[in-house]
Amino acid sequence: MNDVISQLTDTLGEKAVITGASVGDKYKTDWSGLEGLLPSTVVRASSTEEVASILKICNSAKQAVVIQGGMTGISGGAVPQEGEIAISLEKMSGIIEVDVDSMTITAHAGTPLQVVQEAADEAGLFLPLDMGSRGTCTVGGVVATNAGGNQVIRYGATRSLVLGLEAVLPDGTIISSLNKMLKNNAGYDLKHMFIGSEGTLGIVTKAVMRLYPKMTSTQTALCALPDFTSVLKLLKKTFSTLGDGITSFEVMWANYYDEVVETVEQAKSPFIEKYPFYALVEYKSQDRIHDMEQFSSVLFEAIEDGIIADTILAQSLKEADVFWTIRDGIGELLTTMGPVVNTDISVPISQMKAFIEQLEPALYEAFPNVKLRIFGHIGDSNLHVCAGTGSEQDLDAISAMIMGVTGEYKGSVSAEHGIGVLKKKYLHHSRTPEEVALMKTLKSAMDPNGILNSGRVI
Amino acid sequence: MNDVISQLTDTLGEKAVITGASVGDKYKTDWSGLEGLLPSTVVRASSTEEVASILKICNSAKQAVVIQGGMTGISGGAVPQEGEIAISLEKMSGIIEVDVDSMTITAHAGTPLQVVQEAADEAGLFLPLDMGSRGTCTVGGVVATNAGGNQVIRYGATRSLVLGLEAVLPDGTIISSLNKMLKNNAGYDLKHMFIGSEGTLGIVTKAVMRLYPKMTSTQTALCALPDFTSVLKLLKKTFSTLGDGITSFEVMWANYYDEVVETVEQAKSPFIEKYPFYALVEYKSQDRIHDMEQFSSVLFEAIEDGIIADTILAQSLKEADVFWTIRDGIGELLTTMGPVVNTDISVPISQMKAFIEQLEPALYEAFPNVKLRIFGHIGDSNLHVCAGTGSEQDLDAISAMIMGVTGEYKGSVSAEHGIGVLKKKYLHHSRTPEEVALMKTLKSAMDPNGILNSGRVI
Ligand SMILES: Cc1cc2nc3c(=O)[nH]c(=O)nc-3n(C[C@H](O)[C@H](O)[C@H](O)COP(=O)(O)OP(=O)(O)OC[C@H]3O[C@@H](n4cnc5c(N)ncnc54)[C@H](O)[C@@H]3O)c2cc1C
Ligand SMILES: Cc1cc2nc3c(=O)[nH]c(=O)nc-3n(C[C@H](O)[C@H](O)[C@H](O)COP(=O)(O)OP(=O)(O)OC[C@H]3O[C@@H](n4cnc5c(N)ncnc54)[C@H](O)[C@@H]3O)c2cc1C
Repeated sequence: MNDVISQLTDTLGEKAVITGASVGDKYKTDWSGLEGLLPSTVVRASSTEEVASILKICNSAKQAVVIQGGMTGISGGAVPQEGEIAISLEKMSGIIEVDVDSMTITAHAGTPLQVVQEAADEAGLFLPLDMGSRGTCTVGGVVATNAGGNQVIRYGATRSLVLGLEAVLPDGTIISSLNKMLKNNAGYDLKHMFIGSEGTLGIVTKAVMRLYPKMTSTQTALCALPDFTSVLKLLKKTFSTLGDGITSFEVMWANYYDEVVETVEQAKSPFIEKYPFYALVEYKSQDRIHDMEQFSSVLFEAIEDGIIADTILAQSLKEADVFWTIRDGIGELLTTMGPVVNTDISVPISQMKAFIEQLEPALYEAFPNVKLRIFGHIGDSNLHVCAGTGSEQDLDAISAMIMGVTGEYKGSVSAEHGIGVLKKKYLHHSRTPEEVALMKTLKSAMDPNGILNSGRVI
Repeated sequence: MNDVISQLTDTLGEKAVITGASVGDKYKTDWSGLEGLLPSTVVRASSTEEVASILKICNSAKQAVVIQGGMTGISGGAVPQEGEIAISLEKMSGIIEVDVDSMTITAHAGTPLQVVQEAADEAGLFLPLDMGSRGTCTVGGVVATNAGGNQVIRYGATRSLVLGLEAVLPDGTIISSLNKMLKNNAGYDLKHMFIGSEGTLGIVTKAVMRLYPKMTSTQTALCALPDFTSVLKLLKKTFSTLGDGITSFEVMWANYYDEVVETVEQAKSPFIEKYPFYALVEYKSQDRIHDMEQFSSVLFEAIEDGIIADTILAQSLKEADVFWTIRDGIGELLTTMGPVVNTDISVPISQMKAFIEQLEPALYEAFPNVKLRIFGHIGDSNLHVCAGTGSEQDLDAISAMIMGVTGEYKGSVSAEHGIGVLKKKYLHHSRTPEEVALMKTLKSAMDPNGILNSGRVI
C-alpha cells in the first residue's frame, strides 16, 4: 500500500492525500450505525481527471477503494473496510450549468443535494428530489443509491431524474454521457450501470438532472380511515380524480400514529377519536382556488362513500406542517423504542393487506415482546415496518422474519436505501440466484480486479 | 446448421420450426426499407422455457439468431442477416394479469401494444404509450427499442413505464424480474440491460408495465408563431402554468406545414395567413370546464405577450383531429417527396435554434436541390429533419451531413428508433469511443459467443 500512497501523492500533491493520524472521524462511518474502521488513507480528488488517475494507480496495484459522498447512507456502503483506501468526492462540489431552456441542471458529484435544489429554484425551476438528508447527501450519493424521497409517486426516484452522467471506470476510463435530452436511443443507455449500483461499477463524477416547472399550489389533508381496504380505495379515488397531481400518499397504522401523538412533543392529533388508519395526502398543482375546490370535493365524496371516517384539510402551510410532524415523528419515536429493527421494504400494493396480516401475528407469536410501528409511502409500494424488539438479542431474528415474509410476497428487502453491506444477507429474498449471478457477471466485466466498493451489494 | 435444426425440432416439435419454402415473406424485413434476406429457418417459441431451450441449443452450436417481434422497427434490427435463424415471438401473445390495486399490467412479449392498451382501458386504467404502429408492434419490441411515441414529455418513453421484465440470456438462463413496485433498490436493476439494447443482450419474454389513471379531459390548440424564440417561450409558458399536464408539444416549421396543407388531401390550415412556425399543443387533465378556462387564458396571455401570432382552440375532438392530420401528414408527404432522408434525431432544446441555423444553409449550399421539411416533438428534444434529396445518389451524403451536425451540437443520431444496422455508422457522432468500448464489454460479458442479434447497434 505504501507504494500506492506515494504514487498518489506524486500525482495529486500532498494536500490531496490524508494519511495516518490526520484522517478525521468523518471518514469512518455513515448513518447506518455500522461500526466503522478509520481508513489509513483518504484521497480527496478535485477533478474527474484526478479520479481517473487515482483509479488507474489503485487498479494497477489491485488496491481496494471505497467511495465516500456525504456519508448519509444507511446501508453501510461508504463505510471503510479492512485495507481500503477511501476516495472522497467532497472537494468536487458545485453547479456546472443550469440550462433553463432545456430544463436541466448539471453538477459535480460532490455537490450537496440542497445546493442543487436551490440553484434550480433560483432559475425559476424545480428539482423534485428531496429527503431529510438534503443538506449533506451528495449528487453522487443519490445517484449511486438511486435515492427516493418524498415525491416518488409523481416524479419517480433519482433514476427518473437523471438525464446524463459522467463516471470513471475502475481502470480510469472516463465515460462521459452528459446527455440533456429526454429521448436518446443511440445504443445502450450506460448511465443505468451507475445509477443504483452503489459505487460498485464506477465513480460518478458529474450528473445532468431533469428539472420541472414549480408547482404553485399545495393542498394537504389528513384522513382517518376504518380499514386498509378503504386506504386502497382512497388511493385509487384521489389518484384517478386528481391525476398525477398527487405527490404524497403517506399511510400510518394506528400502532404508529397513536404512539407518535402520545410520545412526540410537537405531534398533536387533530382528531378527537381514534381510528385504525391515517393517510396524509398531498396534492400539488398550479391553480390554488380551483385545486382547493377539487381536492375538498374529492374528499367530501370519499366521506359520503364511507371510504374515510373523518378528514381535516390544512388551511395553511403551517397546518400542513402539523400533519407532517406526525408523519416525520418517526425520528424521535425511534429514540424512545429501545433496540429496534427499522426496515425499508416494498411490497406490491395489492399484496400489502395480506402481507401485514401474515407478518403481524407471526411476529407477535414468535417474539411476545415485540412492538410494531408501521407506516409507509403506500403509493410507491414502500412500507416501513419498525419493530421495537425489547432485547438486543432478538434483533437479527426479527429482521430475518420480516425480510423472509417480504420475499414471500415478492417484495423488496430494500425499497430505497440499497443493499450496501448490511442487507447483503437478505438479497436472496428479493433476487433469484440467476439475477445475482448476472449482477456478478456485470461486476466482473466492469471491475475485473474487484477494487471498487468490493463486498458491497453482491 | 442442420444439426441445430434437428435439435430444435426434437425439442419443440415440428410445428414450431419452419424451414425452406415454408418460410413466409413476413420474416424477411421490417419497416426500415432494408432489403431483407429470407431466413432459412424460423423458430416460433410458445413459452419462456422454449425460448430458453432454443437459445441453449443455438449457443452451444454458436448459431447466430435474430429476434423478431412485430417487425415494425425502422432501423433494420429484426431483419435477418446471412446465416441467421429467426426466433419469432409471435405465438407468445396475451395479457397475463391486470393488477388494478398495484396499477400494473403484465403481458407476454409477443402481445401487440394495442391489446395491452385495451386491456388497461377495460380495467379503468391507462397505458400512456402509443404510436402509429400500435396494432402490430409488440411488448418485446417496444421494450427492446425503448420506443417513445406521443406522450414522452409527460410520461417518459417505454423505459419509464416498465416496472419488471423477464428475459432469457443467450445461454438459456431465465432472468425473472417481474417487479411490480415503484421502489426496489435490491441490487442492480437488471431490466435496464434489456430495455433499449435492441435484442443484443437477451430475449424479453414478459413485461410488467406501469398504468396511470385515465385522463378525462383533452384540450388541443394550434398556434402560429413568429420565430423559434417564441416557440421556446410558449413551451416554457404552457409548461410552467399548466404543470406536467402538457402531453404533446409538436412544432412544425413553415417548410413542413405549408407543404402538407398544400399536398395532403385531408390537411387544411385553419389560418388565413402564413407564419414561420406552428405548434400543436395538447393538455390533458381531469376537469373539462376548468381545464378549458385555464388553457385558453394561458394562450390568450401568450397572444397579448406577442409570443403567438394567432391560435385556434379545438372545440371538439373532431377539430383536434384536423390539427393532428396536419402533424401526421408526414406519412403521405413522404410518398410525394421522391428520394428522401427521413431522420429521427434529438438535440438539447437550448441548442435547437443554433443547430437548424447551421444545418439549413450548409445543406442548401452543398446540395442545391435539397428540400427540407422540419417538425418535431420539441418538448422531448426530438426533431425530424426530412430532406428530399432530388436524387438517389445524394442520400448518403445528406444523411451524413445531418448526423455530423447533430453530433456537433451534442445531439443524438437516434432519438427513438434505435441504431439497428442502419445507423451503426453514425453512432460515433453521439457516443465516445469509451462509451462504445463499454457497450462492447457488456455485450461480451452477457453474450460471449455473440449469437444474439449480432452486428446490430455496436
Ligand atoms: C436523515 C436522513 C434521511 C434520509 N432520507 C432518505 C430518503 O427519503 N430516501 C432515500 O432513498 N434515502 C434517504 N436517506 C439515505 C441517504 O441520504 C441516501 O442514501 C443518499 O443518497 C446518500 O448520499 P451520500 O452522498 O450521503 O452517499 P454516501 O453515504 O456517501 O454513499 C452511499 C453509497 O453511494 C456510494 N457513493 C457515494 N458517492 C458516490 C459517487 N460519486 N460515485 C459512486 N458511488 C458513490 C458510496 O460508496 C455508498 O455505497 C436518508 C438518510 C438520512 C441520514
Ligand atoms: C407506423 C409506425 C409508427 C411508428 N411510430 C413510432 C414512434 O412514435 N416511436 C417509436 O419509438 N417508434 C415508432 N415506430 C417504430 C417501431 O414501432 C418501434 O420501434 C417498435 O417498438 C417496434 O416493435 P416491434 O415489435 O415491431 O419490433 P421489431 O421490429 O420486431 O424489432 C425491433 C428490434 O427489437 C428486437 N426485438 C423484438 N422483440 C424482441 C424481444 N422480445 N426481445 C428482445 N429483442 C426484441 C428486434 O430484434 C429488433 O432489433 C413506428 C413504426 C411504424 C411502422
